[in-house]
Amino acid sequence: MAASSGSARGAVERSIRERVPPLLTDLYQFTMAYAYWRAGRHQEPAVFELFFRDNPFGGGFSLFAGLHDCLLFLRSFRFTDEDVEFLRSVLPPATDPTFFQFLRGLDCSGVTVRSVPEGTVVFARVPLMEVAGPLAVVQLLETSLLCLVNYASLVCSNAARFRLAAGPRRKLLEMGLRRAQGPDGGLTASRYTHIGGFDLTSNVQAGFLFGIPVAGTMAHSYVTSFTSLQEVWPQTLLAVNGDPDPVDFISLTKGWLSRVCELLGAEPGKIREGELAAFLSYAIAYPQNFLPVIDSYSVGCSGLLNFCAVALALCELGYRPVGVRLDSGDLCRQSLDVRRVFGLCSEHFSISAFDSLIIVGTNNISEQSMAELNKKENEINVVGVGTHLVTCTKQPSLGCVYKMMILSCWLHQARTFSMYWERFAAECEVQLG
Amino acid sequence: MAASSGSARGAVERSIRERVPPLLTDLYQFTMAYAYWRAGRHQEPAVFELFFRDNPFGGGFSLFAGLHDCLLFLRSFRFTDEDVEFLRSVLPPATDPTFFQFLRGLDCSGVTVRSVPEGTVVFARVPLMEVAGPLAVVQLLETSLLCLVNYASLVCSNAARFRLAAGPRRKLLEMGLRRAQGPDGGLTASRYTHIGGFDLTSNVQAGFLFGIPVAGTMAHSYVTSFTSLQEVWPQTLLAVNGDPDPVDFISLTKGWLSRVCELLGAEPGKIREGELAAFLSYAIAYPQNFLPVIDSYSVGCSGLLNFCAVALALCELGYRPVGVRLDSGDLCRQSLDVRRVFGLCSEHFSISAFDSLIIVGTNNISEQSMAELNKKENEINVVGVGTHLVTCTKQPSLGCVYKMMILSCWLHQARTFSMYWERFAAECEVQLG
Repeated sequence: MAASSGSARGAVERSIRERVPPLLTDLYQFTMAYAYWRAGRHQEPAVFELFFRDNPFGGGFSLFAGLHDCLLFLRSFRFTDEDVEFLRSVLPPATDPTFFQFLRGLDCSGVTVRSVPEGTVVFARVPLMEVAGPLAVVQLLETSLLCLVNYASLVCSNAARFRLAAGPRRKLLEMGLRRAQGPDGGLTASRYTHIGGFDLTSNVQAGFLFGIPVAGTMAHSYVTSFTSLQEVWPQTLLAVNGDPDPVDFISLTKGWLSRVCELLGAEPGKIREGELAAFLSYAIAYPQNFLPVIDSYSVGCSGLLNFCAVALALCELGYRPVGVRLDSGDLCRQSLDVRRVFGLCSEHFSISAFDSLIIVGTNNISEQSMAELNKKENEINVVGVGTHLVTCTKQPSLGCVYKMMILSCWLHQARTFSMYWERFAAECEVQLG
Repeated sequence: MAASSGSARGAVERSIRERVPPLLTDLYQFTMAYAYWRAGRHQEPAVFELFFRDNPFGGGFSLFAGLHDCLLFLRSFRFTDEDVEFLRSVLPPATDPTFFQFLRGLDCSGVTVRSVPEGTVVFARVPLMEVAGPLAVVQLLETSLLCLVNYASLVCSNAARFRLAAGPRRKLLEMGLRRAQGPDGGLTASRYTHIGGFDLTSNVQAGFLFGIPVAGTMAHSYVTSFTSLQEVWPQTLLAVNGDPDPVDFISLTKGWLSRVCELLGAEPGKIREGELAAFLSYAIAYPQNFLPVIDSYSVGCSGLLNFCAVALALCELGYRPVGVRLDSGDLCRQSLDVRRVFGLCSEHFSISAFDSLIIVGTNNISEQSMAELNKKENEINVVGVGTHLVTCTKQPSLGCVYKMMILSCWLHQARTFSMYWERFAAECEVQLG
């Protein structure tokens, strides 16, 4: 796992200003702020609570996430001249010009946030964040804070449900970037599904920014881009033992392919030459990282045989092939077939590396299909999940709200409120400014 | 409508580099690119097509969107030293160091995009974009292009379905930022629902960047932050006619409130003073833009009466109140009641401005409830839509794919492909570089 570097952390901090400028909010926050300001109430102390009313996905819990981004947002909250000029153009002409000077000087130095820590298990109707400060300022923060917490918590909770459905041992890979609701949705998903219990992500930028371990080898397009063994280049590979003579890797693999076909009683005529070429080419490029997708044509008639042949050739040269990926059909049944063939090869050719090959399954996995997969006999070591994880198809939004709890005129409520908060042991308190 | 300024356009272009850096892709794009490079195939001419297999939401069409962002992404596609160093840390140690020099020098100057124009009605299995160029480069672009097109097209199509369900006359307001899948999801939604047929957005940043008209006045929190008329300040308002003597607006409104209660046979004891204070305060701040939310307590017993009183007082001073917002309950039935009361006031007090007040309805509107609303008798002029619009609850992802169509080894297919393309009249061709 590559740890997130200092410059990556800097990039996260810089990007919050791009991703969540103070104009990224609803217009009514400004019209209300102006009305408070006009009535001289803008400095009145106010407390808002952020919470949700129902756990998502019909479940009994959620994970709270998004706090770190909220704090970065609050720290960078400042209007530029350009922001203020735009507001002047959209607020009613009657708006007192002095209000725009007030906005120009605004920041969150008077705002205090109390919050449960990032990744905490939380429940409905329990406050997740308490935002206290001058009325006009904490009102202006509403939409942006909700936007930062709602999806982060939703996708983090969704990941935790997938983790519960998958059990503790299986590795989980997030791979939903291409189907996410925008680039930032994809990045947020990679980040918070990791907190929610996923081990790996396909998203390189998430690895760069947050130090999440990244994974991936090849798509079907790579396999189908090859049509014949003539496209394999270079055709040789050096053995691990340091022997300086390059080995003709194509001939070596062809020999193993005949033996595999014989062992399994397979028809050599059904084997796709292009697929073999793709596997050979990838193995020559990455002899220690061979994990091809084996269902581009037929797992049983071509992909698995080609894999075994290339992997056995790699083993003969002293390399350790990693495993295979299945991306269609009945993953459980196929994984059993694949594991059985690995066992046969291990036994017949005395290649113990075949006992520790991994099987990755990726095929439109939902929480339900993950739970079903977990009940059936199978040999899948790593499950990759995309669309259903990142877009939260079962419920694509969390309904966090941000409600005013205390105003100076309600001081009698303050004591009750304070006692209420004491019940939540795990808190973090942040004074901004 | 504020047009998007030059500096706003600059901000859109700058932000693409932050939002979609070239590392925002799946790791396997790099492992495949390396394998192509290692086999000397990276410069091989290749063509990929981007299309989807099924229309979303069980419908018969989609709108294509995201092209502009794709082009900005392609223009800015370049790896920094830091990007390359990170890739070196996550790709297998066997990776030839020369590959990283190749990546460092890469851009999209050799890539050509042919595409249907932004906002075009499109259908399943029809190519939306054709991306041609060196194999390794066009492969590296896959995930980012899919991510930019999938959600933009999905939410644009969703907006079009809401527009069809709403009919051509009603104004539609997008207000989903707080429930969107991340800040960028919210901004993308505001941008592409406007293309899909929405008139207005609550999202100020979308107004700033894309010139979309913004709208919004007040939330319930504003109303409930007032408890008594003592909080109203200033308490006076100048008449439009230029009379220099400020009018005691509270007394004026109290007078109107008595007359409204008498006209409607309402009980003054049920009227909430805090709500009246909030309406007064807002009207004094924005006398030409008075459109309060009237269901914080009871529409019939309090909100509507308070609105009528303040609006009649504004009319007496020569202002034109705008209307009301209903945010809960049976919007259709309430809108009929509200319109009837407006009619009674107009007739009884001879205030013609009450004939053109608008009624805004916002209450968890889905495509289905929009269609039902359209069938029932109602008096709603503007409908605000949030969660169901921006998160596309009915189907939160579009399954666009990016498939390799032509490689140099498949030249025999090229003619067929070219003929296929000629069928699509509305194309735009962009040579990058």
